[in-house]
Amino acid sequence: MNVYLDYAATTPMDRAVLAAMMPYFSDDFYNPSSPYAPAVKVRRDYEAAKASMASIIGAKPGEITMTAGATESINLAFNAGTGHVVTTMIEHPAVISSASKYQFTMVDVDGKGRVSPNAIEKAIRPDTWLVSVGIANSEIGTVQPISKIATVVKKIQVSRLKEGNKTPLYLHTDASQGAGQLDLHVARLGVDMMSINAGKVYGPKQVACLYASRNVRVKPLILGGGQEAGLRSGTENVAGMIGMAKAMQLAYDMRDQEVRRLAELRDSLQAQLVEAFPDSIVSGHPKHRLASHLHIAFPGVDGERLVFGLESRGVYVSTGSACAAHKGTRSHVLMAIGMDESTANGSLRLTLGRHTTAKQIDQAVKAIIEVVNIEKERAK
Amino acid sequence: MNVYLDYAATTPMDRAVLAAMMPYFSDDFYNPSSPYAPAVKVRRDYEAAKASMASIIGAKPGEITMTAGATESINLAFNAGTGHVVTTMIEHPAVISSASKYQFTMVDVDGKGRVSPNAIEKAIRPDTWLVSVGIANSEIGTVQPISKIATVVKKIQVSRLKEGNKTPLYLHTDASQGAGQLDLHVARLGVDMMSINAGKVYGPKQVACLYASRNVRVKPLILGGGQEAGLRSGTENVAGMIGMAKAMQLAYDMRDQEVRRLAELRDSLQAQLVEAFPDSIVSGHPKHRLASHLHIAFPGVDGERLVFGLESRGVYVSTGSACAAHKGTRSHVLMAIGMDESTANGSLRLTLGRHTTAKQIDQAVKAIIEVVNIEKERAK
Repeated sequence: MNVYLDYAATTPMDRAVLAAMMPYFSDDFYNPSSPYAPAVKVRRDYEAAKASMASIIGAKPGEITMTAGATESINLAFNAGTGHVVTTMIEHPAVISSASKYQFTMVDVDGKGRVSPNAIEKAIRPDTWLVSVGIANSEIGTVQPISKIATVVKKIQVSRLKEGNKTPLYLHTDASQGAGQLDLHVARLGVDMMSINAGKVYGPKQVACLYASRNVRVKPLILGGGQEAGLRSGTENVAGMIGMAKAMQLAYDMRDQEVRRLAELRDSLQAQLVEAFPDSIVSGHPKHRLASHLHIAFPGVDGERLVFGLESRGVYVSTGSACAAHKGTRSHVLMAIGMDESTANGSLRLTLGRHTTAKQIDQAVKAIIEVVNIEKERAK
Repeated sequence: MNVYLDYAATTPMDRAVLAAMMPYFSDDFYNPSSPYAPAVKVRRDYEAAKASMASIIGAKPGEITMTAGATESINLAFNAGTGHVVTTMIEHPAVISSASKYQFTMVDVDGKGRVSPNAIEKAIRPDTWLVSVGIANSEIGTVQPISKIATVVKKIQVSRLKEGNKTPLYLHTDASQGAGQLDLHVARLGVDMMSINAGKVYGPKQVACLYASRNVRVKPLILGGGQEAGLRSGTENVAGMIGMAKAMQLAYDMRDQEVRRLAELRDSLQAQLVEAFPDSIVSGHPKHRLASHLHIAFPGVDGERLVFGLESRGVYVSTGSACAAHKGTRSHVLMAIGMDESTANGSLRLTLGRHTTAKQIDQAVKAIIEVVNIEKERAK
């Protein structure tokens, strides 16, 4: 039996999601902009999926723009203003590259990967128009205090009003990693924009959306037929949106029990590995951490060798985010939390998901212990 | 039996395309950037699909960038330079809006919708960096003399070299409508960039690509993890690319016979309608026209009423492109070919496709004659 422990990289599409999408490939395939009844039905189904998606996050359907992937959603969010931008040291490359188009400040995080609302407040300048903080980190799983950051942002908005500073200030969160585990209600979080990724929540790849509250003026990146209220032109990915709505609905229907289940499995995985290797280092926040995530480093061994040793035992894990892993560069996240290079090099990111079972965890523990011991022996 | 005659708006996904995509949804779902063997296999399959796609158009795999839809592909093509742009009066909104970001010249077409290479040549200025001409018009089906335009572009490139003018000059074609019917071999066409849309060729929606020859320096629109050689970040739509490659392969395997079959059916449709209504006006070029297209106007009647009358008889057609139809604005294409407003208002666009049969054509003819007669009676 193979054990997939890289759910943070991507998730398999849920069979129920695929089933929901199926009719829209070859049967209800019509262009939603066409005028005849079967196409109008497709338009309605598309809009209903958007509305269902919107209601899960407490938004209005008109505040949801479909995008092809979270990366596009993030790029679109960063296209809603001009001026200075505040973000953190541990964001996804899509956030960092988007921020680089502006003057920007990257706020530091603590050793557990948490950013302080206070530090965000200090970084906001009179010309700052955007604060972008990912709700949960993809590598170490640390969950950020978004609603507290929102309070800071609102306070500054109010003082700007008093001062007559007309620069808008928005709070964006990349929720790619949090969906299905965290509360993504936009009013409770207090965000103006949020990026959600179907491909990380058992939905289709290259399907995502940007929530942007009505007060945000997003400018389109892609021009053409004027779909998505002019914000994102192109014939709509009807099946994709239907799939995303279904994926989100499934994830939120089972959220409480799934978070408990994942946390139990993850805690058991962590406990067994820490017991076997007392010198191992678990990263991320002990409390504010995604239930799915275990980032663990085995000092003195080579994480990439661990990945390949585990692969040969049918256990699929990564050393970090899929993007960073691919480029073979050192993780900026681990640098930001102050991990030294040799420890960082011995890192594994183990991320659990819907199909992870206790039996799989046992198999993974056995394989990891075996492989780490081999590598420790080699390193002697 | 319902008769779909709006294949230019979108096509149903071929069952074989869906079958090719199926394994990549829930089984081979891995992130192609992940390091373990099953993910590496997914990466290989993705690259193989790209290579197969590339070989159909005579390109190298590295010259293909996957995009989410043709609109994004067109926007990306327009992001490869700065300066003046030349296009035509009858392009898709994605081309027109992209051109609007620059100084641009829109070259006129003749009454049959054809642009003359000579007119393109005259429009090219010393600072023109891009000529963008759609290979075939979505409304009237007219096919453009792309290779002759390419000859003009090459001539100017050569004279620029002599003059020391370092502005590059590229030829881009939106081939959304031509795929499966026209020869899209990039060297034979002589284009530097080409946009192809899977959703118009029995592949998945929101899957397309940009061919850009190695000498073109495309700048990314969407930044992030650096996928697609940095030109288009975001986790790859693996199933989508597999589906697109399969769709293109199917289309090109059956191209010759399908073009003959469609032309025969279309000619029969045209002949019967023209016989029934001698005052009807067929638009587009009699010879250089897509085999799938029949644009016909019935002066004095209301095209939208025809569409709904036909809908109630199970025949699905449009008055123009899905985008324009949706907005209820007058077709810029029909204006460009000099059609007066009242004739334009009585237009139907009938587009045939893979599932169109002779029996369906007979049914459509009967319904159209019936509905046009009713509307003519009303208009008296």
